[in-house]
Amino acid sequence: MAEQQAKPIIAVTIGDPAGVGPETVVKAVATGVVQQACLPLICGDLAVLDRAVQITGVDLAFRAIESPQEVAEQDALAVVDLHAGGENAPIGKISREGGLAAFSAIERAVSYCLHGEAIAVATAPINKESLREAGVPYLDHTAILKGLTGASSALTMFMTGSLRVFFMTRHLPFREIAWHITKQNIASYTRECASQMRRLGFPQPKLAVAALNPHGGEHGMFGDEEIKEIAPAIEELRREGLDVSGPIPADAVFHLAKEGEYDAVISLYHDQGHIATKTLDFYRTVSLTLALPFLRTSVDHGTAFDIAGTRKANELSMVEAILAAANYGPAWRVGA
Amino acid sequence: MAEQQAKPIIAVTIGDPAGVGPETVVKAVATGVVQQACLPLICGDLAVLDRAVQITGVDLAFRAIESPQEVAEQDALAVVDLHAGGENAPIGKISREGGLAAFSAIERAVSYCLHGEAIAVATAPINKESLREAGVPYLDHTAILKGLTGASSALTMFMTGSLRVFFMTRHLPFREIAWHITKQNIASYTRECASQMRRLGFPQPKLAVAALNPHGGEHGMFGDEEIKEIAPAIEELRREGLDVSGPIPADAVFHLAKEGEYDAVISLYHDQGHIATKTLDFYRTVSLTLALPFLRTSVDHGTAFDIAGTRKANELSMVEAILAAANYGPAWRVGA
Repeated sequence: MAEQQAKPIIAVTIGDPAGVGPETVVKAVATGVVQQACLPLICGDLAVLDRAVQITGVDLAFRAIESPQEVAEQDALAVVDLHAGGENAPIGKISREGGLAAFSAIERAVSYCLHGEAIAVATAPINKESLREAGVPYLDHTAILKGLTGASSALTMFMTGSLRVFFMTRHLPFREIAWHITKQNIASYTRECASQMRRLGFPQPKLAVAALNPHGGEHGMFGDEEIKEIAPAIEELRREGLDVSGPIPADAVFHLAKEGEYDAVISLYHDQGHIATKTLDFYRTVSLTLALPFLRTSVDHGTAFDIAGTRKANELSMVEAILAAANYGPAWRVGA
Repeated sequence: MAEQQAKPIIAVTIGDPAGVGPETVVKAVATGVVQQACLPLICGDLAVLDRAVQITGVDLAFRAIESPQEVAEQDALAVVDLHAGGENAPIGKISREGGLAAFSAIERAVSYCLHGEAIAVATAPINKESLREAGVPYLDHTAILKGLTGASSALTMFMTGSLRVFFMTRHLPFREIAWHITKQNIASYTRECASQMRRLGFPQPKLAVAALNPHGGEHGMFGDEEIKEIAPAIEELRREGLDVSGPIPADAVFHLAKEGEYDAVISLYHDQGHIATKTLDFYRTVSLTLALPFLRTSVDHGTAFDIAGTRKANELSMVEAILAAANYGPAWRVGA
């Protein structure tokens, strides 16, 4: 935990210009909480941002800068104008122009973070089809970030207020989830989560592992993964000195974490953790990508082509993403 | 929707005297919102309630009545003193006395509801072991209610604020859940939910069926139950004139229902719906038992023997249970 005096510089990408990204960025950086928490360094086309200002009707003045050294505490918000032609991407549609502009913004933000010119990055949503149209050799954000930083893995954590959730499995058919609930998988995944939590500023994180079966199986009455796999993994982790509780019934563990009982929950499958965070507060859920050389935060929604350009886009998730980058980014770099 | 002028009489059971039930009842009926919404007719031992007043320190005067006709709008709260000896049940422990007193209270409340002397019942938690010690020939609340009313089935719905959730399956091992996701099961269960929703006062309920796989399977990429079973069931139901949407990804459907998009969600498994409601607001989640001759509402927690007698018990769920009985009970009886 250092550098609390000076406001951290947070790189903010505009996402695909055809989606709601630019609108949410414009609305988010115009808020007092964001301006108090950090110095946003917006990466994207100034023409796209000006269009988003028009759409949203937000009262905001941007200042184009050439180098991140020019970011300073003053009224006008700093934008690195990439001149990537994103303004030619038709709003609400997949396009080569949109993919190219989105990728340029991420590239620039990553470069700033790797060189210490920004402390962390908050990203707006991109479109996989547009990336492909643009010939970008990566499938999605995570692949781009790993590719550009050389990181071998990336770990996703969701955060809604004080509720932090990891996902042991993600895009699996429901029928196959139980196959992956093994002592070995739980132990190694939880170790990795504990290690990333320490980088986030929790020296001895209190972790809880969710149960798989209803009521945690009620002593084997409705399933025995808790007895055979989860409890033994937790015992092993505790012997190693980690503060891990569980298995805790899934309908209690997120509530308990929300109340401060645990610093983070290891959910066992995609929907287990996603239902908890997104039902609690859909608009204020943010995604953190850990295990990279710098912290990346992101909104939990997509490009929402159907409402792009209509000023309907809700900026709360973008606000939370930037705040999370500002709150955790500095500690993250020191711990790295 | 009738009888909105006069306050409805709601039978309230004290639950097992050894648990937190009496404390939560005492604290709940002392609140202004409960007293404004209904006339509580408390069923239980007056001695147990007096003890709960001492424990909680609530400023409350009870008035023992002999018959429900004596319930009227005045300051003192009406208690049907059952003289069932519940005050001899040791707090925090399983006991024959606790089981007997708990059962007596339910019996009396059911009788009042069946005879129209109360409009609905809100129940405090009981203990299965104590029931067994007392020789009660029923396993739990649902079995007692079915036994005493002759109902052939009972349908559970959870409610947290405006979020209403049904459960297509409940106490199953996680591995077996997918076996039950069939077109036939979904169609017949959803029909029953729609019918009960009409009794709750929703003439044409807007229902949503949750998906099973992450992202609803993404066109079969992560599981195909959505394509093979859920979507065909929904098509059939829509052809019958029901307003049913889905399958909707489980990490969005509860949020949408909370925002008013749907009147109720059909969740496919225990934790899917329980995580949503209890993470959203653990203390304000109430359970409604439908398909009986009258409406029964209940707290979503157990007897909590570990904190009984310590005045730590949180009464919010009891408050919500009584309010739900008062809000939905009158329409329910008219629709029956």
